[in-house]
Amino acid sequence: MSHLSASFSATIRVRLADAPGSFARLAKAIGEAGGSLGAIDLVRVETSTKVRDVTVDASDSEHLERIVEAVRAVDGVEVERVSDRTFLMHLGGKIEMRSKVPVKTRDDLSMAYTPGVARICQAIAADRDSAWNLTIKQNTVAVVSDGTAVLGLGDIGPEAAMPVMEGKALLFKEFGGVDAWPLCLASKDVDEIVSAVRAIAPGFGGINLEDISAPRCFEIERRLRAELDIPVFHDDQHGTAIVVLAALLNALRVVGKSIEEIKVVTTGVGAAGVAVTDILLNAGVRAVVGCDHEGAIYRGRPGLNEVKASYAERTNPDGERGTADEVLAGADVYLGLSVPGAVSRAGIERMADGAIVFAMANPTPEIAPEGLPPGKVAVVATGRSDYPNQINNVLAFPGVFRGALDVRASTITEGMKVAAGHAISAVIAEDELGPEYVIPSVFNRDVAPAVAAAVADAAERDGVARRSSRPQAAKSA
Amino acid sequence: MSHLSASFSATIRVRLADAPGSFARLAKAIGEAGGSLGAIDLVRVETSTKVRDVTVDASDSEHLERIVEAVRAVDGVEVERVSDRTFLMHLGGKIEMRSKVPVKTRDDLSMAYTPGVARICQAIAADRDSAWNLTIKQNTVAVVSDGTAVLGLGDIGPEAAMPVMEGKALLFKEFGGVDAWPLCLASKDVDEIVSAVRAIAPGFGGINLEDISAPRCFEIERRLRAELDIPVFHDDQHGTAIVVLAALLNALRVVGKSIEEIKVVTTGVGAAGVAVTDILLNAGVRAVVGCDHEGAIYRGRPGLNEVKASYAERTNPDGERGTADEVLAGADVYLGLSVPGAVSRAGIERMADGAIVFAMANPTPEIAPEGLPPGKVAVVATGRSDYPNQINNVLAFPGVFRGALDVRASTITEGMKVAAGHAISAVIAEDELGPEYVIPSVFNRDVAPAVAAAVADAAERDGVARRSSRPQAAKSA
Repeated sequence: MSHLSASFSATIRVRLADAPGSFARLAKAIGEAGGSLGAIDLVRVETSTKVRDVTVDASDSEHLERIVEAVRAVDGVEVERVSDRTFLMHLGGKIEMRSKVPVKTRDDLSMAYTPGVARICQAIAADRDSAWNLTIKQNTVAVVSDGTAVLGLGDIGPEAAMPVMEGKALLFKEFGGVDAWPLCLASKDVDEIVSAVRAIAPGFGGINLEDISAPRCFEIERRLRAELDIPVFHDDQHGTAIVVLAALLNALRVVGKSIEEIKVVTTGVGAAGVAVTDILLNAGVRAVVGCDHEGAIYRGRPGLNEVKASYAERTNPDGERGTADEVLAGADVYLGLSVPGAVSRAGIERMADGAIVFAMANPTPEIAPEGLPPGKVAVVATGRSDYPNQINNVLAFPGVFRGALDVRASTITEGMKVAAGHAISAVIAEDELGPEYVIPSVFNRDVAPAVAAAVADAAERDGVARRSSRPQAAKSA
Repeated sequence: MSHLSASFSATIRVRLADAPGSFARLAKAIGEAGGSLGAIDLVRVETSTKVRDVTVDASDSEHLERIVEAVRAVDGVEVERVSDRTFLMHLGGKIEMRSKVPVKTRDDLSMAYTPGVARICQAIAADRDSAWNLTIKQNTVAVVSDGTAVLGLGDIGPEAAMPVMEGKALLFKEFGGVDAWPLCLASKDVDEIVSAVRAIAPGFGGINLEDISAPRCFEIERRLRAELDIPVFHDDQHGTAIVVLAALLNALRVVGKSIEEIKVVTTGVGAAGVAVTDILLNAGVRAVVGCDHEGAIYRGRPGLNEVKASYAERTNPDGERGTADEVLAGADVYLGLSVPGAVSRAGIERMADGAIVFAMANPTPEIAPEGLPPGKVAVVATGRSDYPNQINNVLAFPGVFRGALDVRASTITEGMKVAAGHAISAVIAEDELGPEYVIPSVFNRDVAPAVAAAVADAAERDGVARRSSRPQAAKSA
């Protein structure tokens, strides 16, 4: 892949001979190595040399190394240091705890801490629900992972999962105004995880489960939902499901099809695949055929595990059998939540006219948008930012939790998820809608407030809101 | 008690008749009710009245109510609203999560989150220790409580404990630059607590246990210390012990006695009493006699539980028996870590000349400083801010964890605690030292850095430091 990205960029500190053409040679070398030259800063002037910081974007780590080697080889250029911009950004972690109240004087201390704090404690001891007013609970979510299914990297452990969960916390604050704290667990045992999350729950207004491998994630979420009186939301499942629904609703508008009449084929019945299927069924889709690596899942297929057997009960109404490519025949929508190569161009060619293809495997889609049969597919989406229509959970989870916290919801209902999907899709006005714009940008600031309002309303409708009014703006320094 | 405090203060919004003398009558009423008039703000001017916000300090909640009633009774004064300043300060909680990096552009997002973050995760998966560099672990402490022994309030539950733990987090940041997050646990079961804390440990550089009742706190701390490779520190025990040691070292300088030669009597052998005894023994004290409500603890006393039986083994070298008042005979130091009335004036009178009395029960000391026999006691300390020499844990825990994190300590050794005590005492110069100044103010900004440096050095000496150099200044927005 030759797509250049800031996520593979470095700042190279070079000492350049003070002679005509030396910088031009440097720039030429970077260009010939396929790098993109960004910011150039002068660090200092020496007797016969200048020291500069030169920022370059590459397409991956190896490419970055090749560029640096090319720079080293330039006559009159000495590389002093290479700073990987992404590593620099993560150094020391990306989040911090901040005070919202001053503790500069004895009066401050006597109110924020002892002895004054005792009165606040007594008020909560007398009425436990007042913790929603008098503590951080009202705005705080735990981002919980066991590090077993991190991005596409698999089981890399709790320490290695932390950078993702810190990033998640950033996005919660930036887009939802939610205070999230990452908790990466040193256990893969379902009982221990359930017990630990149940234990830490009192100080949180919600639990965002993240990057926990299937099928453990299903049981963990089910048990925590049953035991806790705050929302528990496995983002890999439901965040993805909400955004897929949003994009699909708009794609159906583009092709002029009704959600009740479409046939959907999905590859991947892991955490995301199951949740996407369920939200589509709740939103009105009647025919979903899910496929794993053995092909279509149908009632009675030998060797189905509990999750897939249950899945077979509520999907594939015509009992179709065969490979994903085969059951794509006549399908209106293909949803890839699996691996590159899960379907082929031949399969896509069997789809109905005005086909919708969401190939969401990351970073390499199930089928490359460039490889689709010309004229066959009306709307394409992927998980990537370098194609149109990026399916990105960031569109869902900040608004979902913002809305749930605003009404102090006790859980996230199916109705709240479907409402979130509709809210995201409605951010795109009818006259803006088109094949390359079925889902808003992750930086569209209208999304999270719209999702929050829809989720809060749905919580009230579904009877899981602890209060109906929205809060006063949270105190913020 | 008539001590007025900001922790019992309110802002009273009053509508005052626009007539001569009306404000004077209001002020007189507050004064006669024993309140202290603070800030006065004009809110708005109406046709024949003015609306003002008047802040008053009271000595306790009932007193505050009496003052408000007195104000209501004033002719020409109408009370619009009473805002309790302490409650206002706690509304919505006292802390928040903040980002240290920007996520405003797609480049930011691609480095802080996907796809760039995957490289950081892979680096940590390849070398777990790099989590100390590439995540928040290096500066982050979990403040863990089960809400069973909160302040003097007892077992008030995890929700009601949150305001204290949030306050603790504030103080960690303000004085130690440490990012602490409160985790209040919905379990009192030792196994569940140990399991939960062990589970959440990977994202933290230390665990501060707080307000967990004895004797459970001993086992919880012991097991977590054995299982985790980061510091575990029960502040009620060791924070108190460090500050008591610091104050005692200076008090001994004031009276000119040597630590090896003194006899110490303590009432209270709960969490704090045991830890204080241990740090004194580690710091060179030879004779400590601990008393519970049945009197002196001695080897072989019938009915001792495990903790007290072990305590008897290392204390009371002469096997003294009797009430606390009785064993105070000839003692040089009395340390109260128990309840009001644990010793009497008659007991104090039996102490050696140049007696040192630390009566630390809160808010009411074991024996009131005013009630001590005149001329007998050379140095008095309490847990209160309205007497000289306040024994306050805030002097210890921020610096202890700052120092431990700076060298990535794997545990807190006895040597690190003793070093912290010496460091606090040394903040007071020899020529400043006096009977009313044996311990620095909680707002003395020299304390935490001195403690941190001493703790880091001791960690290196004791072989528990993962690195010997201090970190670069933490990134901060």
